[in-house]
Amino acid sequence: MTRTIVASGTREIIIGFDQPFCVIGERINPTGRKKLAAEMVEGNFDTVRNDALAQVAAGATMLDVNAGVTAVDPNATEPALLVQTLEIVQDLVDVPLSIDSSVTAAIEAALKVAKGRPLVNSVTGEEEKLEAILPLVKKYDVPVVAISNDETGISEDPDVRFAVAKKIVERAADFGIPAHDIVVDPLVMPIGAMGTAGKQVFALLRRLREELKVNTTCGLSNISFGLPHRHGINAGFIPMVIGAGMTSAIMNPCRPQEMEAVHAANVLNGTDPDCMNWIRTYKNHQPHVPGAAAAPAAVANNDAGGRRRGGREARRARG
Amino acid sequence: MTRTIVASGTREIIIGFDQPFCVIGERINPTGRKKLAAEMVEGNFDTVRNDALAQVAAGATMLDVNAGVTAVDPNATEPALLVQTLEIVQDLVDVPLSIDSSVTAAIEAALKVAKGRPLVNSVTGEEEKLEAILPLVKKYDVPVVAISNDETGISEDPDVRFAVAKKIVERAADFGIPAHDIVVDPLVMPIGAMGTAGKQVFALLRRLREELKVNTTCGLSNISFGLPHRHGINAGFIPMVIGAGMTSAIMNPCRPQEMEAVHAANVLNGTDPDCMNWIRTYKNHQPHVPGAAAAPAAVANNDAGGRRRGGREARRARG
Repeated sequence: MTRTIVASGTREIIIGFDQPFCVIGERINPTGRKKLAAEMVEGNFDTVRNDALAQVAAGATMLDVNAGVTAVDPNATEPALLVQTLEIVQDLVDVPLSIDSSVTAAIEAALKVAKGRPLVNSVTGEEEKLEAILPLVKKYDVPVVAISNDETGISEDPDVRFAVAKKIVERAADFGIPAHDIVVDPLVMPIGAMGTAGKQVFALLRRLREELKVNTTCGLSNISFGLPHRHGINAGFIPMVIGAGMTSAIMNPCRPQEMEAVHAANVLNGTDPDCMNWIRTYKNHQPHVPGAAAAPAAVANNDAGGRRRGGREARRARG
Repeated sequence: MTRTIVASGTREIIIGFDQPFCVIGERINPTGRKKLAAEMVEGNFDTVRNDALAQVAAGATMLDVNAGVTAVDPNATEPALLVQTLEIVQDLVDVPLSIDSSVTAAIEAALKVAKGRPLVNSVTGEEEKLEAILPLVKKYDVPVVAISNDETGISEDPDVRFAVAKKIVERAADFGIPAHDIVVDPLVMPIGAMGTAGKQVFALLRRLREELKVNTTCGLSNISFGLPHRHGINAGFIPMVIGAGMTSAIMNPCRPQEMEAVHAANVLNGTDPDCMNWIRTYKNHQPHVPGAAAAPAAVANNDAGGRRRGGREARRARG
């Protein structure tokens, strides 16, 4: 049984086929968030702290930490900023972290200060990346996300993407890194642009699980890019990838519809024993009443924010 | 490619691996609906008519029609009542119908008056049932739901349930009925009572598709029996069974959360070309706004009822 162990200073998590789906919170990432980028450059980490707490409260298993503020010279500035961000987050929450950077020096700097056993995000099949990242993964004895693209880009052919993943696993083995420390991202294409994107990734996930016996992850919301009501597509995609064998995803845990899909798929996949988490989370869920507005999504059982509470009750009071 | 053809007097539907998931509306069924049973006995079909229209408006592909009002002698009374109900429904809506009865005489009476090519619901692996139903299925050249239990009851062993399904397909072949006219129900157990119920049915669905090459169905909501927030479990189950190869389900199409899961899974399974149905249905969906109550489930694009419209707008007006 493939088991990828990640840990914070105080908490160990197993990513595996027999484990609850590992939700890697994606929010601490300035890519596409200009305001957050500006704050981080100014040394203001309020949003980082809020996002860390909110994601853990919403049920994130791990948090991804990215400090790519697209400076003029990321090699010079990103290592220190990533270290600073990582230290703030690991002092604030106790979930394992994912060190997310395209700058090798930033990854190494973060690995030096990270507590526990973080996940490195990421290596690709590009020769330069393999040579830069795999020695660090070996040296610090950590697991790594392996994205199945290489110098030729992202292939639309799933067989090529499988071959790239296989190459990374083999190269890692050359460095003494076991397959259970490789978490493959098969790359999810937007279904609106490529109608076969879903079936492609389901087939890839089965092969990755059965042939390479590796854990898997993806940037989940990419599937719904460009479509209306993306949460609905994402929430349908989650049970399908879990059914196909995916064991983690980089996603936004603060979305109740997506997290409900995760919780339901865990029940159905047999990784929520006696449905205890489901029952705890949804025991007070208000059912839909015909003629009334739709019921609000349930609040995660450990949601500290409380922002989503009281939907129906509030409406009743007003009605 | 397995294709099960069903038809009303005017409309043909294909159930198949490359087709949108076939939603068989379950509402016209007095089982567990005392008020409906009493109405039907009295010759009042208002609820039947309303349920027929509402289910088609909500997106049902077909409608199941059951008239089992649990009379003292169903063999004497059910044939006439089922015929009456069926005729009312087929005069009102143009979707194909499923003739649902445990009384053989009622099934035959309904087959005599049904327009198009209805689905017979159901035969089991019980010898008496096979001998009673399969000749009718052959005589009227219609497809049939095959439930994978027999004289010994419902086995908890999925291999036994597969063997029962295989036996029914083989016995049907003896009668000259092709496998593509058998829609196997592998039987879904409540996950709250049997934690392996999900994985069991996913594995069974793959075998039924790959080895027997048959279409499949189930009583969908059985999976969530006894759990809180059943719609959430059902909505997670739908994409998982579709991903595993299930091609239809007997379910309540008037539940927006479940229908959203069907629409999303069709997109992801590649049976909603260019996401046209998704875009048409959800293009005006109001996204969730942090700090506000959760967004209501979208209204099916062809929902004539309008009961579920205006959730967010109504709340805004009040807020």
